[in-house]
Amino acid sequence: MFWVEGKEKVINSSWIRKMFEEGEKLAKIHGAENVFNFSLGNPYKEPPKKVKESVSKFMEQEGIHKYMTNAGFVDVREQIAEHFNKESLTKIQGKNIIMTSGAAGGLNIILKSLLNKDEEVVVFAPYFVEYGFYAQNHGGKIKVVDTCHNNFIPRGEDLKAVLNDKTKAVIINSPNNPSGALYSKKTIEELATALVNWEKESGKKVFLISDEPYTEIVYDKHKVPKIMDCYPNTIVTTSFSKSLGLAGQRIGYVIISPNIEDSELLTDIMVFCNRTLGFVSASALWQKVAGDCIGEKVDISDYQEKRDIIFEHLTSLGFEIRKPEGTFYLFPKSPLKNDVEFAKIAMKYNILIVPGSGFGAPGYFRISYCVPTDMVKKSLDAWTKLAKELNL
Amino acid sequence: MFWVEGKEKVINSSWIRKMFEEGEKLAKIHGAENVFNFSLGNPYKEPPKKVKESVSKFMEQEGIHKYMTNAGFVDVREQIAEHFNKESLTKIQGKNIIMTSGAAGGLNIILKSLLNKDEEVVVFAPYFVEYGFYAQNHGGKIKVVDTCHNNFIPRGEDLKAVLNDKTKAVIINSPNNPSGALYSKKTIEELATALVNWEKESGKKVFLISDEPYTEIVYDKHKVPKIMDCYPNTIVTTSFSKSLGLAGQRIGYVIISPNIEDSELLTDIMVFCNRTLGFVSASALWQKVAGDCIGEKVDISDYQEKRDIIFEHLTSLGFEIRKPEGTFYLFPKSPLKNDVEFAKIAMKYNILIVPGSGFGAPGYFRISYCVPTDMVKKSLDAWTKLAKELNL
Repeated sequence: MFWVEGKEKVINSSWIRKMFEEGEKLAKIHGAENVFNFSLGNPYKEPPKKVKESVSKFMEQEGIHKYMTNAGFVDVREQIAEHFNKESLTKIQGKNIIMTSGAAGGLNIILKSLLNKDEEVVVFAPYFVEYGFYAQNHGGKIKVVDTCHNNFIPRGEDLKAVLNDKTKAVIINSPNNPSGALYSKKTIEELATALVNWEKESGKKVFLISDEPYTEIVYDKHKVPKIMDCYPNTIVTTSFSKSLGLAGQRIGYVIISPNIEDSELLTDIMVFCNRTLGFVSASALWQKVAGDCIGEKVDISDYQEKRDIIFEHLTSLGFEIRKPEGTFYLFPKSPLKNDVEFAKIAMKYNILIVPGSGFGAPGYFRISYCVPTDMVKKSLDAWTKLAKELNL
Repeated sequence: MFWVEGKEKVINSSWIRKMFEEGEKLAKIHGAENVFNFSLGNPYKEPPKKVKESVSKFMEQEGIHKYMTNAGFVDVREQIAEHFNKESLTKIQGKNIIMTSGAAGGLNIILKSLLNKDEEVVVFAPYFVEYGFYAQNHGGKIKVVDTCHNNFIPRGEDLKAVLNDKTKAVIINSPNNPSGALYSKKTIEELATALVNWEKESGKKVFLISDEPYTEIVYDKHKVPKIMDCYPNTIVTTSFSKSLGLAGQRIGYVIISPNIEDSELLTDIMVFCNRTLGFVSASALWQKVAGDCIGEKVDISDYQEKRDIIFEHLTSLGFEIRKPEGTFYLFPKSPLKNDVEFAKIAMKYNILIVPGSGFGAPGYFRISYCVPTDMVKKSLDAWTKLAKELNL
C-alpha cells in the first residue's frame, strides 16, 4: 500500500518518535545527563513488585506457552470483569472482554470490526496522531473536532455539528494524551446526548470508543467517570502500559458493552479480527500477569510531584498551561505561534518536547514528564534560559 | 467492515478452530483421555529449559518493560542475523530484521506494505486458510495454485500460468502446513526462474514471501534451502511458536532481503506498518528471550516418533499418505470424496481431524500430531475401526 506512495508519508509520520530520536542523538553528543528528553510517554519506573512474582509463578504453570482461545484466557477475562464491576453500574462478564496487544491493538480490531469504506470516526483535537492511521487501515477516516478553544474539553454542540450519515464512531481519550484533561461525567453525558439525539433523528447508531490507558493515572482525588454507564453503544479499550508500566510487553484489552444491540455478534467479529489481523491473541504470559496484578499500579505520587514541579516553574516563567488532572503530560501554549519553530529553539537548550502539530493542535507543545525527578529538577534552569531567549 | 455482512462469514472461517472446539466438547462427554484431538497445531511440549532461565534473567534487567524502537531491540536483531548468516550465502544485518507478533503479525505487515488495491498474492494449495484474510485486510486477494496433482510440490509452469499485471507477491510455506512437504532447492529455483522471467517480460517485480515457522522441524537429515539465496526479492517471516514451543507468546520476525532494490525504504515502511497496525512492537521480554535462545529447539525426535507411528499404521490400513519431511502434520487422502463428511464419521470414533477443504484442498484431511505419544498410540485402535467402517 505504501510502497508506491513514497517515503515522506512514512518517515514524517510521528513527531513523537522523531523528537525522541533527536534526543538520543543529543545524548550521545552532550551526555545523557545533560539532555532533557520530554518527548516520549515511556514509563521510566519499574512495574509494581508483584509483577515479577507473578511472572515467576506463571512460568511454572504447565501449558502457559500454548495457544489459548483467541479472545484470551477465560480466567483472566473474569478477573478483569470482576475488577471493572466494582466501580461500574453496567455489569460485565468475562465474555464481554477480549485480551489485546495493548490499546493500539484494541483500537485496530475495534475499527476493523466497525468501519465500512469512507466512514468517519470523530476525534477531538488535541489527539493521538495514530488514530488517523488506525482509521485509514480499515478504510475509514477521522473527522477532527477542535477543543483548544474550550480548555481541551469537548462540547456536545461541537460534536453535533459534525455528525453525518458517514459517522460510525467517536473516539474519546480521557485523561487525555496530550492535554492531561479529564472529561467530567457532565461532559460525557453531553456527548452521549448528542449521539442519542442523532440516532433518533437519523436512525444511525454511532459507537463511542473510549481509549482509557491513563484512567489509573489521576491526581488530587479526581474520579474518572465510567463511560459505559453514560451511553449504551460503548466500547472501552485500555492497556497495562501506563498503570503497570508494561508498555513494551503489549498487553491490554477491549470491553464490548453488553448494552450494545447484538453485543455478542460484535464480540465474535472482533475476536475474528484479532485473529486475522495477525495478533492471533495477546501474549499468554502477560495476560496471566495482568489478570493477577489487576488493581496494582505504579507510584502515582511520584508522577504528581513531577507535574507540580514543572507546572509551577513554567507557570512562574510565564508559560500558559491548563493544570492537568491526570496522565503524565503537560500541554502548554507555545510562546511562538509556530510550535515547530519553538521545538527547534528548545533543542538549543537540550530540551526535547513534541510540537502540538503532532496532535492536531498547532500552537501548543507537549511535555512528557515520565522521566526521573532529578532530570525534571535539572531541566528547570534550561527552561528559565529558554523563557529568557523568548522574552516571556 | 464485517459488521454489515452478517455472521456466517466470521463464524465459519476456521475449520481448525471449529474442530478443536468440537474436540473440547467431546472431551467433556467422554473424558479427555478418550478423545483423539488431532485438530490444532498447538505445541504440547514445554519449551527448552533455557527459556525459563532466560525469562528469569531478563526479568532482572532494568528497563525491560519499556518501549523500544518499533523494529525491536537492536541486540536481539543482531543475534538473529548472526544465527541466520551461518547457513546463508546472503549475509544480513540486524537492520534487515523486524521483530513481530509471530509470523501472522509478520505476514500482515508485509502484505500491508506491499499491496495496492486489488493486487494478487499467489498461494499454493493446500495452504493456511488465514492467508486469504491477511491479503483481504490490506485490499488484496489470493490467487490459488493447486499442487495436489504434483504431490504437494509447486511447479514453475503452474506459477507462470497465473502471473499477471496484478500479481504483487507469492507466498510459499515449506515445510508446508498442512502437507508436511519440504520444497527442494530445485523447486525454489524453478519458482524463482518463473518470477525472473516474468519481470523481464512485463517489467513487474513480484516479491517472494517465505513463511517459515516449520524450518526447524524437519526429519531424516533433510536440509531446508535458504530462499533468499535463490531469489533477490525475498521476504522471510517466521516465529518461535513451533521451534521453541512459544505459540501463545506471539514472537517472531521478518527479514527483508538486502538484495531487494530499496530494501531500506521497504523496511522503514514495514516498521511503520508494525507500529500503526497496533502491534507497536513485539513483546519486549519475548524478544530478548528469543534472541537468547536462538538455535535452541524442542525435541524433534519426539515428533518424528509420532509421525512414524501414525504414518505406518494408517498406511497399513490403506490410507494414502505422502510421507512428510517436516512439520507435525500428515495430510492423507480422504477415503470419502467429501472430506467434511469423512471428518464427521471420524468424530464417531472420537477422532478429530481437519477437512482438507479448510486448506483449499478438498478430498484430503489434516492430522496434527503435536499431541502426547500416549494419545497417538491409544488412537490406533480407533483408526482401525474407522477404516473398517469405510471398507478401506
